[in-house]
Amino acid sequence: MALIDELRSLLGEAHVLGPEKLSLRDPGWCKTSQAAGLLVRPADAAELAAVLTATPGMGIVPQGGLTGLVEGTESHPGQLIVSFERMNRIELIDPAQGMALVGAGVTLAELDAALEPYGLMAGVDIGARDSCTIGGMVSTNAGGIRVLRYGMMRAGVLGLEVVLADGAVLDLTSPLMKNNAGYDLKQVFIGSEGTLGLVTKVALRLFPRPKAIATALVGIAPEALSSFMPRLRAALGDDLAAIEGMWPACYRYCAASQGLTRLPLAEGPGLFLTLEAFGPDDQTAREALEAALVPALEDGTIKDAVIAQSEAERATIWRIREGGGLIGSGGEPGYHYDVSLKLADLDPYVQALEAACAGLEGVSVLVLGHVGDGNLHLSLMLDGPLHPREVVDAAVYGTLRQFQGGSVSAEHGIGLEKLAALKAAQPAPVRAAMLALKAAYDPENRLNPGKVLG
Amino acid sequence: MALIDELRSLLGEAHVLGPEKLSLRDPGWCKTSQAAGLLVRPADAAELAAVLTATPGMGIVPQGGLTGLVEGTESHPGQLIVSFERMNRIELIDPAQGMALVGAGVTLAELDAALEPYGLMAGVDIGARDSCTIGGMVSTNAGGIRVLRYGMMRAGVLGLEVVLADGAVLDLTSPLMKNNAGYDLKQVFIGSEGTLGLVTKVALRLFPRPKAIATALVGIAPEALSSFMPRLRAALGDDLAAIEGMWPACYRYCAASQGLTRLPLAEGPGLFLTLEAFGPDDQTAREALEAALVPALEDGTIKDAVIAQSEAERATIWRIREGGGLIGSGGEPGYHYDVSLKLADLDPYVQALEAACAGLEGVSVLVLGHVGDGNLHLSLMLDGPLHPREVVDAAVYGTLRQFQGGSVSAEHGIGLEKLAALKAAQPAPVRAAMLALKAAYDPENRLNPGKVLG
Repeated sequence: MALIDELRSLLGEAHVLGPEKLSLRDPGWCKTSQAAGLLVRPADAAELAAVLTATPGMGIVPQGGLTGLVEGTESHPGQLIVSFERMNRIELIDPAQGMALVGAGVTLAELDAALEPYGLMAGVDIGARDSCTIGGMVSTNAGGIRVLRYGMMRAGVLGLEVVLADGAVLDLTSPLMKNNAGYDLKQVFIGSEGTLGLVTKVALRLFPRPKAIATALVGIAPEALSSFMPRLRAALGDDLAAIEGMWPACYRYCAASQGLTRLPLAEGPGLFLTLEAFGPDDQTAREALEAALVPALEDGTIKDAVIAQSEAERATIWRIREGGGLIGSGGEPGYHYDVSLKLADLDPYVQALEAACAGLEGVSVLVLGHVGDGNLHLSLMLDGPLHPREVVDAAVYGTLRQFQGGSVSAEHGIGLEKLAALKAAQPAPVRAAMLALKAAYDPENRLNPGKVLG
Repeated sequence: MALIDELRSLLGEAHVLGPEKLSLRDPGWCKTSQAAGLLVRPADAAELAAVLTATPGMGIVPQGGLTGLVEGTESHPGQLIVSFERMNRIELIDPAQGMALVGAGVTLAELDAALEPYGLMAGVDIGARDSCTIGGMVSTNAGGIRVLRYGMMRAGVLGLEVVLADGAVLDLTSPLMKNNAGYDLKQVFIGSEGTLGLVTKVALRLFPRPKAIATALVGIAPEALSSFMPRLRAALGDDLAAIEGMWPACYRYCAASQGLTRLPLAEGPGLFLTLEAFGPDDQTAREALEAALVPALEDGTIKDAVIAQSEAERATIWRIREGGGLIGSGGEPGYHYDVSLKLADLDPYVQALEAACAGLEGVSVLVLGHVGDGNLHLSLMLDGPLHPREVVDAAVYGTLRQFQGGSVSAEHGIGLEKLAALKAAQPAPVRAAMLALKAAYDPENRLNPGKVLG
């Protein structure tokens, strides 16, 4: 029996898609997502296990919301795409336990809407919330703007159901907060980008929704960054929810891209920080944020600050930050990066990178990021000759290697795009230990082949 | 050259201890810790790696503060004990980054004393703080009384240095908050009880010390537990720091063991909860706790409550809870357990266990635990015939199997003591996946042989 017929006999006609049906679907960010030309939609872990046993040795490419930015969903002919879109049930919301049990195909927005009536939420929030799936967020250990407060996706995962390359199903869905009963196997699969196992179900930890959020825009000299942050942390404790940052050129770009004429803070040589603090009510939250900022203003640690006094003012501040999402979307040529450094290294790195790019004609560096987490999103725009990616990569990653402990991927992952950068950055024993993990769980290299490890 | 001489040539005479010197050392909780009769004290990862390559195939038993409760430090002749006591340097405290880099042999108390001047602390706190080591806490994924607030040890680990069975040294000490650069290998070693690799250095996330803590003792009917907790969480949010619980018989035992005549709350049929809430100052913290409790008192969800108005009152409340540490220490015969369940299952499990023990002459069940985390510490006391452990185990774990998702070890780990219970509780694919991990990193079964996996 032909493979496609065998798969249809397992899953039903409607759940095995060939090239023609696939071509009607949005490929998402990675334009080669659907090149395999064959996609299955198993209903649950058992069906997925049956698919894996029916396709020995075949390359399997798991796909969630297709919002990844590093070609982690690339596929090619001869491979089989697995979609989790039918595993879209929220099976349980348990306010007493503070947990939810959801299918891998549920989107973050769907989950959030279901949790809202309970006054609960998942900790992680990302811009792609409408389309990104919980399974994809677990497999890529998603980050976003609230990592400072809630950690990355890993921190919110209580349990998992995982299907291994050989079709074995691991039920690790126990939602316990404390469970030292042998190895915590779920940790192996979180953030492994679908190369070690396929996540089909997630037990998520839930958090109380903040009652009120105060937002401020702050101007600060780069060199004051690493002294200002611990002061903020000490003053606001766990109410400190976000420290987003924009370097001057990026602030100008973002404000302009949003068509803002009146800026909340005048441009200056320094950085611009978007701060958020939680509180029991709007006024208390604003007062706490103000109390944290005033001393820093008085002693000159920060140059200027404005605290949003209304939803409208808050929206304006965030519009500038979100203008960063538009960088390059107008088709301007450029390359984009997602690196991570120690807080004290952030601005020195940006300065060193600008120096390294001085020799590259027409290259300008736009920098914003989750500064509180040490995460920079860099856009190197090409207003002149189209320098090849390798040349620009060399400037970005070569400069990064000068800063001990820097990472070539803060939150986007490796996929195919960052293979070379990861290999160059990894000590041999670390790479060997990664390969040992792959060999242990996917000896035939079936699961998302080529991603993460090459 | 004899092994002992070879080791001495590697580490120096003073750092290789034979039986006579070993016999002068405190074996700690597990009386057979030192039965190997040979202990080395490497100064760092490089020396430890040299020891491993010089002792091919030899069983290695890592030992920290020897405060574990599950025979995870047991050793026997022919094995080599590795002590981390010379890896006792706090290499770095970085308030800006909110991290510390510490040797595996540093005790929690030593670290806490060093962090206090910065107003920072490690999230996890346990009773053994004076002797337990950071490396041991990582290897066992330590829990304690603040898990509700800070998570277990895993949540505070930013990076690790690990020595593998073959002597390879993994430098995973990058302290970044966000680092999706390939597999997060450190997760494999956290909580694996020294069976997959040996932790030599830890990059720890630091947290602001609470400015003030309010403490309450609450009487509650067991059936109200699972409705009361989400209300507490909603009212106090992240200021809710601890929900400890004692069942009535245990409350009586603990109060008596501490020689308390005047009890903060009169005995009753219900449970007693010790609650802690953080706040900016004592009064605000107390008022917030009171505001959270009053409605529950008025609608009868809780029966009675007292909020400590002074350090002395706070100490009294905690003395009762800490009386639990004395259970069995007077030599009364009994068996002790550390299980974990969903919050809604806690009291039903205790009831079911008491029913299961009704047939065992002279067995009484004392229950306390980290109720907010679903973690019960059970003491089954024998006031009559000395029932063999297997019989009592059957009651405890047999009853546990009736509650979906329950765990045979919440925080103590497996060691040797819980091997049988773990095997009985694990589905075959999960056990196979654990063995695959062991085969990948320790194919010769050198590292803490027999522990966790049997």
